Amino acid sequence: MRSPFYLAVIGGGDAAPDILELAREVGREVARRGAVLLCGGLGGVMAAAAQGAQEAGGVSIGILPDAGRSRANPFLTYSIPTNLGYARNVLIAHAADALIAVDGSHGTISEAAVGLKLGKPVVGLHVSWEMAGLRRAATAGEAVAAAMKMLGR
Amino acid sequence: MRSPFYLAVIGGGDAAPDILELAREVGREVARRGAVLLCGGLGGVMAAAAQGAQEAGGVSIGILPDAGRSRANPFLTYSIPTNLGYARNVLIAHAADALIAVDGSHGTISEAAVGLKLGKPVVGLHVSWEMAGLRRAATAGEAVAAAMKMLGR
Amino acid sequence: MRSPFYLAVIGGGDAAPDILELAREVGREVARRGAVLLCGGLGGVMAAAAQGAQEAGGVSIGILPDAGRSRANPFLTYSIPTNLGYARNVLIAHAADALIAVDGSHGTISEAAVGLKLGKPVVGLHVSWEMAGLRRAATAGEAVAAAMKMLGR
Amino acid sequence: MRSPFYLAVIGGGDAAPDILELAREVGREVARRGAVLLCGGLGGVMAAAAQGAQEAGGVSIGILPDAGRSRANPFLTYSIPTNLGYARNVLIAHAADALIAVDGSHGTISEAAVGLKLGKPVVGLHVSWEMAGLRRAATAGEAVAAAMKMLGR
Repeated sequence: MRSPFYLAVIGGGDAAPDILELAREVGREVARRGAVLLCGGLGGVMAAAAQGAQEAGGVSIGILPDAGRSRANPFLTYSIPTNLGYARNVLIAHAADALIAVDGSHGTISEAAVGLKLGKPVVGLHVSWEMAGLRRAATAGEAVAAAMKMLGR
Repeated sequence: MRSPFYLAVIGGGDAAPDILELAREVGREVARRGAVLLCGGLGGVMAAAAQGAQEAGGVSIGILPDAGRSRANPFLTYSIPTNLGYARNVLIAHAADALIAVDGSHGTISEAAVGLKLGKPVVGLHVSWEMAGLRRAATAGEAVAAAMKMLGR
Repeated sequence: MRSPFYLAVIGGGDAAPDILELAREVGREVARRGAVLLCGGLGGVMAAAAQGAQEAGGVSIGILPDAGRSRANPFLTYSIPTNLGYARNVLIAHAADALIAVDGSHGTISEAAVGLKLGKPVVGLHVSWEMAGLRRAATAGEAVAAAMKMLGR
Repeated sequence: MRSPFYLAVIGGGDAAPDILELAREVGREVARRGAVLLCGGLGGVMAAAAQGAQEAGGVSIGILPDAGRSRANPFLTYSIPTNLGYARNVLIAHAADALIAVDGSHGTISEAAVGLKLGKPVVGLHVSWEMAGLRRAATAGEAVAAAMKMLGR
């Protein structure tokens, strides 16, 4: 079986409608490219990205901070409860081949920073924060394309 | 999308041929029942169970102790590197609806103990150790059936 | 500064008076030997052991499963909240040079199993469970002496 | 026993001499205020801060990313190996009442971000990055004083 590749979509659990639409389009694009979508499994950007992946016929895995699945969003194909709280952000950085940050605040920043520390490509879409090594993109398609290119795919 | 259910197969990274055959049959049985197989993602019992799931057309997810995927067994459908070492055993107990231990030693015991602590059904197949609350089974089919029954499925 | 050595006392958060007295005596003995006492930081055996260490003028560090210190027992010298739930048991096994189990059930078993898996000496005092590699002792003094001897101290 | 309070000093494992001197002065100041110094336990800023705490007669605890203590810096009073890699950064954020970042890059940013996410005061000293909620200070004394004031001490 050929090993899949994994793109994480990271962002806030609470987001404005235009951000959610952007995350959904990233999710669709990840699925169209044949990648497995990883996310934090909860609402907001995480749910929108999983919804997009589902709409495009793709697979998503949510790595939850909780002990169980009760807060998992309904669009996930699979979910992994960890009971690790924010330490699950570090797992996402390890499990992803590349990360795409959509907006987001401190939680997203912590994930992006660990991703960069691990040498993973991290692309920012509509992010208001700065970080050395962050590659910016203007559209969902451009973000996924940039991540793929940095991965040599 | 209807939420899948998750059965973990736990056991040693190094095992005798008859144990591996047993784990493979458990993997097949898990897949036949429509459950997602969770395992630790490495070799031995973990690889045999994933192989069985693959043979029966099922899905397996390996939750790896490592920072990356280089030691992931080739039968996994998906893998999640955690960089948590043995703490990933606790994740498996959280992520599984029920656990089936095939043989195994201290690592497996730690997983089974956390599973029982969390109130999950834990079934032992060919295990040489004792644990309060462990349900024993004699065959792969019986083990999966016992886990399903304890889950009310 | 000479590096201290660390003995973990592991056991249930709820225990009978005679078990608590035993844990307290283990705590005193650990402190008399000049070791730092590690424990899970909550009540029962964990609190009794920390109380014993305090009575003998020693130092204890509680590694808590919680996000904060509100459930930390009042006898600890220091406490480290982890927000890791039962995964903190694995941290205790890593941080301890040797582990002494006083009674206890599934949580304690998981800690002892990881300790043995990591090659640490694990001594059982008044434990009702069996585990390959577990060294048994009859008294608090004997348990600590056995752990010290296995550590070559 | 009155519960101690905990100030984390976070920063890179590799740092220029002036940064190390600054971290050492922060360590001294933390100890003079009677706080327990928490750090990541390795070299660079972590070692310099622990050295400062030691010089001022204080206590430091290093929360190590490794499975053992071989890379622990020699100035720590106590050390806790976690085998969690960068996930130990999240533990430091949970264990600290406030965090002081001295210079630092992605690892430090991830810690500061989780600290702010958890609602902890985070003070930046000689940091080249920006983060919403970060309080800046110009000297070691000012940084510790700002952290104490935000804690209401």
